[in-house]
This record gives sequence, structure tokens and C-alpha cells, in this order.
Amino acid sequence: MTGTLTIAGLGPGNDALVTPEVTAALEAATDVIGYIPYVARVPQRPGLNLHPSDNRVELDRALHALRLAADGARVVVVSSGDPGVFAMASAIFEAVEKHPDFLETDIRVLPGITAMLAAAASAGAPLGHDFCAINLSDNLKPWSQVEHRLRMAARGDFAMAFYNPRSKSRPHQFAEALTILREECGMDRLIIFARAISTPDEVIKTVTLGEATPEMADMRTVVLVGNSATRRLGRYVYTPRSAL
Amino acid sequence: MTGTLTIAGLGPGNDALVTPEVTAALEAATDVIGYIPYVARVPQRPGLNLHPSDNRVELDRALHALRLAADGARVVVVSSGDPGVFAMASAIFEAVEKHPDFLETDIRVLPGITAMLAAAASAGAPLGHDFCAINLSDNLKPWSQVEHRLRMAARGDFAMAFYNPRSKSRPHQFAEALTILREECGMDRLIIFARAISTPDEVIKTVTLGEATPEMADMRTVVLVGNSATRRLGRYVYTPRSAL
Repeated sequence: MTGTLTIAGLGPGNDALVTPEVTAALEAATDVIGYIPYVARVPQRPGLNLHPSDNRVELDRALHALRLAADGARVVVVSSGDPGVFAMASAIFEAVEKHPDFLETDIRVLPGITAMLAAAASAGAPLGHDFCAINLSDNLKPWSQVEHRLRMAARGDFAMAFYNPRSKSRPHQFAEALTILREECGMDRLIIFARAISTPDEVIKTVTLGEATPEMADMRTVVLVGNSATRRLGRYVYTPRSAL
Repeated sequence: MTGTLTIAGLGPGNDALVTPEVTAALEAATDVIGYIPYVARVPQRPGLNLHPSDNRVELDRALHALRLAADGARVVVVSSGDPGVFAMASAIFEAVEKHPDFLETDIRVLPGITAMLAAAASAGAPLGHDFCAINLSDNLKPWSQVEHRLRMAARGDFAMAFYNPRSKSRPHQFAEALTILREECGMDRLIIFARAISTPDEVIKTVTLGEATPEMADMRTVVLVGNSATRRLGRYVYTPRSAL
């Protein structure tokens, strides 16, 4: 008998953004696995084993989850946001591909509110037209690919959302990203820094690319860049549905 | 005294994907406004006025909502999916921009599970790396812009999600989109047709671009296209987090 492996999105931080589907999966779980601050959001109860782990051990965590499920547990791997957007879902499938014995595991992915959409909602509607989501971290891809994607997204006049814009180990790359964006989009393009979105610490700051500085972003920030038609309207920022 | 205007996302169809934040807003509403099938999802109760309206009257609907809020009502405008992704949020702000008297209105946008992320979760993790969301409808933008964005997204090796891929009034354009994608991405690239996602009618079909036909999409379908590394793994489709 094998158990189940559910990869669940907890949303950006506010429990009012956790879907009932995810809440039900957590209530039925025997084991919850994930990065320490995400597991800390799951209420403890008798019969539930919590397995918090450190950041950047995604493949170890994935194998741990797959092994527990193979032994009959009802495992929930928790991600913040949506598990399919720069989170644990791909890591689980990478582990399965390396260990095909786990292909028989019953794996389900439960979507969640991803940070860029919560940030967009708080700001108004800056992603109201075609947009791109880009992970600025080069842990798993060369920086040249990030650069190329920034230019293609800008030349397509997409609005953009950036995850993991800046970390202590990579403090300079977001400055390079801003330089590329200024070259491609000009100094007047709007950029939104949304930090700790949906939590009590939430801060949203909208400036132009000319005014933006690298220090406005950290790892708790999701960054949104408008397209050429994105505008301010009172305290809101929005992108119209039409081309101009 | 003015009321409030909340623009709420109902998710793709399954009530287990409606956030508690949206449920609470609906419970506090005096008036709910939206396209007929979305308003039909809101439970009727004494004291609640439902205002279903037809499709493609977004600006009329927005003005109606703004006027009711100005008169003191607690109005909720319902969208499917996320209101900020090709839905009502931008239409409301367009109406406010045309009628700046409404700038004083208390407007809040509540995010929801958007169709592409629910579809990705059902398929596995096809959007697990950088991706673009493109509205293929040319009601509000020239087709040349859609074409250009498809090519930029393909040349950036983004995975892609297409909303409104095909309608009765525009039956030929999705065929053109497929032709562009075959030119840019080759015949073996994976494409996922996700219809009526999260409802009892849900069907997910994964084929290659060489096998894809325009008839596989209709207006209830969200279409996902993988990047160059997207692969099948048993019954799942996923995109690894690394470049290759």
C-alpha cells in the first residue's frame, strides 16, 4: 500500500488566502514537509508529524516526501505562494525523474495564490495585460539566460514580475537587471516593489525605473514592472486591457 | 457617505478554490455584479442584490458598480480566476480614469486562483520555470501585437499560457498562433489543452505542436506551451527549475 503526496500552496502569507482545498489536505495529512517558515504556518495537532527543513535542500526534501508516501503516509509538501511557480512542484518531479521507482506515487499539486498576483491586487491591476514571470536567481540557470529573457520580455512590451530579485549572496545582479530594464524600457517606466505581501509587514512602493535603486528589493520582495501603457491612477497602478 | 467596491476572484470553477477572503467579502456584500455564470456561483440570501450582466459589457458593468458604491453600497464585482489577469480589475480602473469623480471610491482587489495555475497544477508543473501569460483575443489589441509577443516569448524560451485562445468570432487566429509557435519552437514542443479546469467537465490533453490542431481549443480552454526543457514524466508534464 502506498500513501499520497500532495504539493500544496499556502499563498503569500495571510491565512485568508489559503484555499479550502489546501486546508482540507492539511487536515487529512499525516506528515507535513517544507521550508521552516512555511511548516510553521501549519497548526500542530495529535497524529501530525511536522518535518521542517532548511532552504536550498529542495531535492533532499522531495526524496524525503516521496519515501514517506511510499511507506503509506499522507504527505503534504508545503510551498509559499503557488507550488508550481518557482517552488516545490518542479523539485518533486525532478526527484521522481531521477528515481523512477516513485513514478507510481499518487502525486497531486494544489494551486495557491502566488506572490505576484497578490502584489498586483494590492497595487491595483499592473498585470492586467500580457505579462511574464521571471525568477531572477541564477542558482539554477546562467545569468546570461536571465539577461536574454529580460530583453525579450521588454521587447515584447510585456509587464513583468520578478521573483527572488536579490539575495545576500548575489547583491549585484538586481542592479544589472535594472540597467538592462532602463536600456530597454526607458527611465519613466513604472516599477513596483512589493515586500512581505499580505502580511502585517506589507509595504508597496511604486517608482520609475529612473528612481529605482537595488536596495529597494530583498528576498521578501516581489518586483513588478509595468508595460509601456501602465499608469498611476490616484493611489492605484494599473495596465489597461487595450494596447495603448 | 460612500460604500466600497471589491473586485473578487472566484477561481476557475471549483468552490474549494475560492479563498476565505473572497468568501467573507461576498458574505458582507449588499450587491454582487458580474458576468451571468459568475454571479450564478454566488449563493442568494436576503438583503443581497445580484446583478448578472452579459459578456463584453465590462465598462458598463464597471460604471454600474462604481455608481452603486458611490451611493453607499458594499459592492463586489466577481471575476472568474484572478480579477487582475485578463478580467475585471483593469476594466474598473479604466472606468475610473474616464470618470475621475470615482477616484475617491474605496476600491480593493482580492486575488484568486487564475486558470493557468490551476491547469498547470492539474498537469504537473509545466510553468515551473520562467513563463508568460498572453491573451490571444484581439478584441482590444491588434493581432500583430499578439504575433510579436508570441515570437518574443518563444525566443526568450519562456513557457507560455494562453487565455481566450479561440472564439466563434475569431476561429482562424489560433491556427495562426500554432503556425508561429511551430516556426519558433519546432514540432516536438509540448502543448497542453486544459478545458473547464477544476470543474466536473475538466479535460487535460497534452500533445506536441506537430500534433496540435486548432479545434483542440475553445473559449473554455486555457492553453499551456512548455519551454525547450518541458517533458513528460509518466502521466505528468513538468518543466525543471534549471536551464536544461
